[in-house]
Amino acid sequence: MIKIVILGNGNVATHLTKAFYKNKDARVVQVYTRSTKPKFCLKNNIEITHNINNLKDADVYIISISDDAIVAFSKQLDLKDKLVVHTSGSVAMRDLVCNARKGVFYPLQTISKNAKVKFKKIPICLESENEKDYLLLEKLANTISKKVYKINSEQRQNLHVAAVFVNNFTNYLYKIGNDICDEKNVKFEILKPLILETANKIKQISPEEAQTGPAKRNDKKTIKKHLELLTKEQQEIYNLLSKSISSKL
Amino acid sequence: MIKIVILGNGNVATHLTKAFYKNKDARVVQVYTRSTKPKFCLKNNIEITHNINNLKDADVYIISISDDAIVAFSKQLDLKDKLVVHTSGSVAMRDLVCNARKGVFYPLQTISKNAKVKFKKIPICLESENEKDYLLLEKLANTISKKVYKINSEQRQNLHVAAVFVNNFTNYLYKIGNDICDEKNVKFEILKPLILETANKIKQISPEEAQTGPAKRNDKKTIKKHLELLTKEQQEIYNLLSKSISSKL
Repeated sequence: MIKIVILGNGNVATHLTKAFYKNKDARVVQVYTRSTKPKFCLKNNIEITHNINNLKDADVYIISISDDAIVAFSKQLDLKDKLVVHTSGSVAMRDLVCNARKGVFYPLQTISKNAKVKFKKIPICLESENEKDYLLLEKLANTISKKVYKINSEQRQNLHVAAVFVNNFTNYLYKIGNDICDEKNVKFEILKPLILETANKIKQISPEEAQTGPAKRNDKKTIKKHLELLTKEQQEIYNLLSKSISSKL
Repeated sequence: MIKIVILGNGNVATHLTKAFYKNKDARVVQVYTRSTKPKFCLKNNIEITHNINNLKDADVYIISISDDAIVAFSKQLDLKDKLVVHTSGSVAMRDLVCNARKGVFYPLQTISKNAKVKFKKIPICLESENEKDYLLLEKLANTISKKVYKINSEQRQNLHVAAVFVNNFTNYLYKIGNDICDEKNVKFEILKPLILETANKIKQISPEEAQTGPAKRNDKKTIKKHLELLTKEQQEIYNLLSKSISSKL
């Protein structure tokens, strides 16, 4: 039985607490939070503390707070020789400042507060200072996910920026699609099957093979027609992405 | 029974021929093609002609050739008072130049030659010059798809450019994600669940609500860190999209 203390009460912290709560091989022995009403913990009688100096004994301490706050927070910890990990994509392992053993437990997914999260399919990227700790983290990760990867801090930071492209920026392109539809009184739902198919395709073929469209064909006539339909801001994005696609031909 | 002649032998033409082939309420009576070996037709004994002046009698003639070629091709047709439609997103209905009744039968999806196509879920956007023809096209579309929409030429051209954003450009962002992974020896498959979740989210919430990330939070520290990891071309795209997202805050 792996004993865990969760430090934090945000989206990721809450979903991790839930995932480990119904788990045969791991147990959340305590949650540290500044919130006086952490819903899930209160409902399920999970021990809470508001005092950073009052943490219970555990095998893994998981810091799951906003990226910006991790470094300063870790300085307050006195967990000599214990294993402390954070769940951030953008913070390096060595940025944890404390006398503990260090590691990273990064679930790579877009996690919203109210959405149901199926950890089984979420890749968990692990890092540790030594092999023994890695094996413990791997054991822990395997209890909630089937996709566990060994990823060092440099790789993780690159994954994090890649995630911005495939998640945040992609979603913004959906928004532009939605805006264009709204402008012309067309239902955005007409585009949804195409959005899903575009994502599904990369299960089978690489994005490079899947690339189509006027820029890929260098079809200047269609590109010109399209630009005439767009706002200035949309034009800038259309032009830059088309130029980049065409330059690879 | 709606009788159809398909004019063309590309991806869309072939998939439409297949879809109508096993159809109780519609029948492909002839395929016009320049190809001497249209596989599917030969295999299934569908009548072929290479002579544009030798088209059989039908209720609907579907031109399914590359967008650029439609106008010139339509000029060759002598189908007085027959119903002629094209399948293009970017060509206006009035651009068909012939003595026939005109219409559009546009399946909005990314269709590859070898991929299986389930028309049931593909939106079909219809347009016609008169209500009677619309009802016929609607009846025809309903035999293969559950998602049939009345869309005029202006709306369709806007849908087409919106599709470039949510399909072609989105796929290109996947490619950038893939490139970043390759560069650092990280498996691209780690990002695939995130790509699928990003697309699936818009079934439930609007892209505007779904928007997250450093640009949305105006988190300049993370943006700066990310830019340092990118090539010059990737930086340009990252900067432009971030600027655009931040400007909406």
